[in-house]
Amino acid sequence: MQFPSKLIEDAVNAFATLPGIGKKTALRLVMHLLQKDTENTQYFTDAVLKMRTEIQFCKTCHNVSDEALCSICTNTYRDKSVVCIVENFRDIIAIENTRHYNGLYHVLAGLISPMDGIGPDALNILSLEERLKNGEIKEVIMALNPTIDGDTTIFYLSKLMAPYPVKITSIARGIAFGGELEYVDEITLARSIQARLPYENYLSK
Amino acid sequence: MQFPSKLIEDAVNAFATLPGIGKKTALRLVMHLLQKDTENTQYFTDAVLKMRTEIQFCKTCHNVSDEALCSICTNTYRDKSVVCIVENFRDIIAIENTRHYNGLYHVLAGLISPMDGIGPDALNILSLEERLKNGEIKEVIMALNPTIDGDTTIFYLSKLMAPYPVKITSIARGIAFGGELEYVDEITLARSIQARLPYENYLSK
Repeated sequence: MQFPSKLIEDAVNAFATLPGIGKKTALRLVMHLLQKDTENTQYFTDAVLKMRTEIQFCKTCHNVSDEALCSICTNTYRDKSVVCIVENFRDIIAIENTRHYNGLYHVLAGLISPMDGIGPDALNILSLEERLKNGEIKEVIMALNPTIDGDTTIFYLSKLMAPYPVKITSIARGIAFGGELEYVDEITLARSIQARLPYENYLSK
Repeated sequence: MQFPSKLIEDAVNAFATLPGIGKKTALRLVMHLLQKDTENTQYFTDAVLKMRTEIQFCKTCHNVSDEALCSICTNTYRDKSVVCIVENFRDIIAIENTRHYNGLYHVLAGLISPMDGIGPDALNILSLEERLKNGEIKEVIMALNPTIDGDTTIFYLSKLMAPYPVKITSIARGIAFGGELEYVDEITLARSIQARLPYENYLSK
């Protein structure tokens, strides 16, 4: 694609570096900004650049934060005896939006992946051990994606945490609410039969 | 959606103002930038802001340009007797990419649309008349979208240009190359039969 202006070309290429945005979509975004006032673009670029340069990662749980400690870790109403282990902060947003979890988090910032050469040292695991040594944590919930990497990470962490007096749990796997049996994959269906619950437990959920 | 950080929230909202980008996609883009270096985001925001603040519109044809006159208008190899009228600069990019047009352009920056309250005064029509008065232009090609607004604009412009000694043409409508007859809409098919060409003309295209 040829562009009538180097400025347009640079902006299109800049947008096209973002995931899921090709040259045509990038051009549409550039045209949108051109149709609006300059202040509009100024506001957009300011917000994005400010986010990237001023963002901090919580010293305790590695969640994104505006300050040295995140709003979840500093919240005195939250249950400090339960820690939920997640892959990244997007999972925290998802869990927080359920409004059914009142404990703390620990962001690994990835999963152990031998295929991609990502070992335990590349993740926030050392700081997790430090938190466990503190003794305040009674339960650790594994909320990792049910992939090979996720299962590998859960296995590694469960070995690591064995010496500490903590209860290790995992979020429940099964058929989603509203899901239809005939469309569920075989592994999920088989495991949800094996891990069946007493009817009373089901009702209480 | 609740966000763990005001900075993230602002950046997500900024991305979500762009067309076709919702909050979830915006969050994915923000996460992408967070995974890359700060310089990466700096490059992105610089390119976008520079484009918006430094862009100029060609004084002659209103195409986007890095200077007061665009690279097409200042190109001495182009045929200055033919002017192609387009809705916006994206159409110029599309036509330029065919490499089969060597004339000049005139960007209207919109179409006459009584429904949306857009009259001829809101478009770059006065400057088109100035160009016609010059006398250098021998042919005007209408390359507007075949919508009601497009046809209204073509009708208005053809009335306006009637006093000038210029040939007025329109880009050909018909069945796209590679298009299959059975999937073509009725109006296009009917008109392409009415406007049928001698076989020799067809071959020469």
